[in-house]
Amino acid sequence: MTQRLMHLGAFLYPTGHHVAAWRHPDGQPDAGVNIAHYRHLAQVAERGLFDLLFLADGVGIRGDDLPALSRTAIRYVGQFEPITLLSALSAVTTHIGLVATVSTTYSDPYTIARKFASLDHLSGGRAGWNLVTSADDFEARNFGLDHQMAHAARYARAEEAVDVVARLWDSWPDDAFPRDKASGQFFRPEAFAPIHHKGPHFNVRGPLNVPRSPQGRPVIFQAGASEPGKALAARTADAVFTATQTVAEGQDYYSDLKQRLPAHSRDPHAIKVMPGVFPVIGRSRTEAEDKFAQLQDLVHPDVALSHLSNLLGTDVSAFDPHGPLPDLPVSAGHVSRQKLLIDRARRDNLSVLDLALSMAGARGHWQITGTAQDIADALQERFETGAADGFNIMGPVLPGGLEDFVDLVIPTA
Amino acid sequence: MTQRLMHLGAFLYPTGHHVAAWRHPDGQPDAGVNIAHYRHLAQVAERGLFDLLFLADGVGIRGDDLPALSRTAIRYVGQFEPITLLSALSAVTTHIGLVATVSTTYSDPYTIARKFASLDHLSGGRAGWNLVTSADDFEARNFGLDHQMAHAARYARAEEAVDVVARLWDSWPDDAFPRDKASGQFFRPEAFAPIHHKGPHFNVRGPLNVPRSPQGRPVIFQAGASEPGKALAARTADAVFTATQTVAEGQDYYSDLKQRLPAHSRDPHAIKVMPGVFPVIGRSRTEAEDKFAQLQDLVHPDVALSHLSNLLGTDVSAFDPHGPLPDLPVSAGHVSRQKLLIDRARRDNLSVLDLALSMAGARGHWQITGTAQDIADALQERFETGAADGFNIMGPVLPGGLEDFVDLVIPTA
Repeated sequence: MTQRLMHLGAFLYPTGHHVAAWRHPDGQPDAGVNIAHYRHLAQVAERGLFDLLFLADGVGIRGDDLPALSRTAIRYVGQFEPITLLSALSAVTTHIGLVATVSTTYSDPYTIARKFASLDHLSGGRAGWNLVTSADDFEARNFGLDHQMAHAARYARAEEAVDVVARLWDSWPDDAFPRDKASGQFFRPEAFAPIHHKGPHFNVRGPLNVPRSPQGRPVIFQAGASEPGKALAARTADAVFTATQTVAEGQDYYSDLKQRLPAHSRDPHAIKVMPGVFPVIGRSRTEAEDKFAQLQDLVHPDVALSHLSNLLGTDVSAFDPHGPLPDLPVSAGHVSRQKLLIDRARRDNLSVLDLALSMAGARGHWQITGTAQDIADALQERFETGAADGFNIMGPVLPGGLEDFVDLVIPTA
Repeated sequence: MTQRLMHLGAFLYPTGHHVAAWRHPDGQPDAGVNIAHYRHLAQVAERGLFDLLFLADGVGIRGDDLPALSRTAIRYVGQFEPITLLSALSAVTTHIGLVATVSTTYSDPYTIARKFASLDHLSGGRAGWNLVTSADDFEARNFGLDHQMAHAARYARAEEAVDVVARLWDSWPDDAFPRDKASGQFFRPEAFAPIHHKGPHFNVRGPLNVPRSPQGRPVIFQAGASEPGKALAARTADAVFTATQTVAEGQDYYSDLKQRLPAHSRDPHAIKVMPGVFPVIGRSRTEAEDKFAQLQDLVHPDVALSHLSNLLGTDVSAFDPHGPLPDLPVSAGHVSRQKLLIDRARRDNLSVLDLALSMAGARGHWQITGTAQDIADALQERFETGAADGFNIMGPVLPGGLEDFVDLVIPTA
């Protein structure tokens, strides 16, 4: 019997995933542009047997609500671009995977294919692409548009882009370059094969001007939870990053996605489902809870309320933060999430600010607050009950949150 | 009196700048995707007190004439993408500049500004951008076009792109990010200033999602020799890479360019002119000549003839390679160069193949074949007679060509 192994990604956010991490006494406030900080994180993750480093990205600052924005380190206000960062980290690590987010919305497939093929060569076969589409008007405005493209148009472009990228990665066979000094043949002429792609979004002749990389095709990650996102992942992704909260939600997503693979002649095991986890680790549960409370105390009310406004699709800044959540007009894009939050506020008798704070810290990700054993047990449960093939670990404060995970949760044997 | 210092760039071509370098016994044929090779080169250049590493680029394979193309390593047939490569090298060097070529023709200014700002942070202020436009139909076909844009259109786009990039680099003041844990202020709200650029080619809101980098504005290199190229350089470049052959040509270019700066309120010293040099170094002149002859013997006739066809704008493959160059129809884009070559073939009584071989080795760059003293004297002459502020050193075979330059030509005191 083949042993199934749990995959682990270290999802690195500059100072950590908690919204107030940068204010924590252990937080590195300039983390976003501090290469020593990232070098340390990469080496800790590598020591901790992680499969990969995972970097998110935004092609612009997300928003311009200055009272909240100016108090946050994590809305892409100022940090390294991920491909350059992972290229640098490739030189100081030896075997961990390097997964960078790149949007298909404002990039050309030739450029995307080339960057990841180059990173794959630089790292000896460790590159991965987290394919996203850009769903933000603020990003659109940096690339000549007033508003983001419609969801369906973004996914149509992504579907075509990923195919072109894959064909470019495959455009040279492994043995195309004999580089034979004696005969003078650098590549085999018969291996030269332009792809001649012509489609609704892209015309690309090829071939790629990078030899086929060590992995051939770098690993493809995706995170889409929408119907088009799941369809794209089922057809083309090697792994998905998800944001499921409960075991049941995780199982639903997992089985939904895996059942889609045979239609694409793919084995369900060909895709790895890796939910995000926000672990708050203590030597006791009380210590873990105290740690989280300390972080929560550092959340500025404006930051929490801005986050709640985004979740509800309604500006809550005019409400009394210490009063109950008033009745809200139904918001088009946010119906089910709005209902969930309103129900919760009513049930637990939360003020507007309490509700905001309860959502802001871990930004809605699956949080486990407890001992290393609690965390290991929770991960194992989902791994063994059809909810996950592994996890993307989201340290609340970095590097401490990753160091604790490696030193306390990862088995040493 | 301020001492004027000679600037030196190490222009790294995968296996070296000689067209047959990869076939040489000391050549590293897989250099294009060999990070250990580049790490060594970077460290040799750093030890040799070079100001910078310089990487060319093409966004596609240049051509599809397979008999010649399949025998060459230097027409972007398969190598690292330069920004990823320099990002990796930033981690294994400490003070050398890192200059990568990026074309404005198929990139967005937001993306360009971001990559170089990120590299500047990664390297502690060592990033440089060699701005080019893409003048090749084969590149165009990887980005949705059948033919390259017209020269004037490419330069109009470049003029706007470089301004947008500079404004994005300047979009945050140096002190925008107090990252003050106590007050919770990550950036100063009053420092948030979108650039709101609206122009014929680009609409870009900004600001950049990277804090102002250590250099503020990474160094800008250019290589344009055309009138629009020189106009752009005079207005915006910190340094130019040129391909002048003789002292007189070098002086003409130098004074022409420098005289253009005051019109842009720039001091002529604000731009550094750095011609390319192809040095063939021997312990004696005879040894140097023998070294070059050994390389020339490795040039395949098809490679040489293909290169001559490109230079003349006429396919020479139908001519008798051992006969004299026949009379040619005047070629629109190549008038003066064509005349130069025809005159030379007639004067020296060269066969078609002899002419081709004489041009192919160093690909038309200024070549110095001699002792270390010969080379130092030739560089000093141009440095002291108003033809250059420094040089881009183009080792014929790498790493040997760079090692020899560092060990023999660079003064040790």
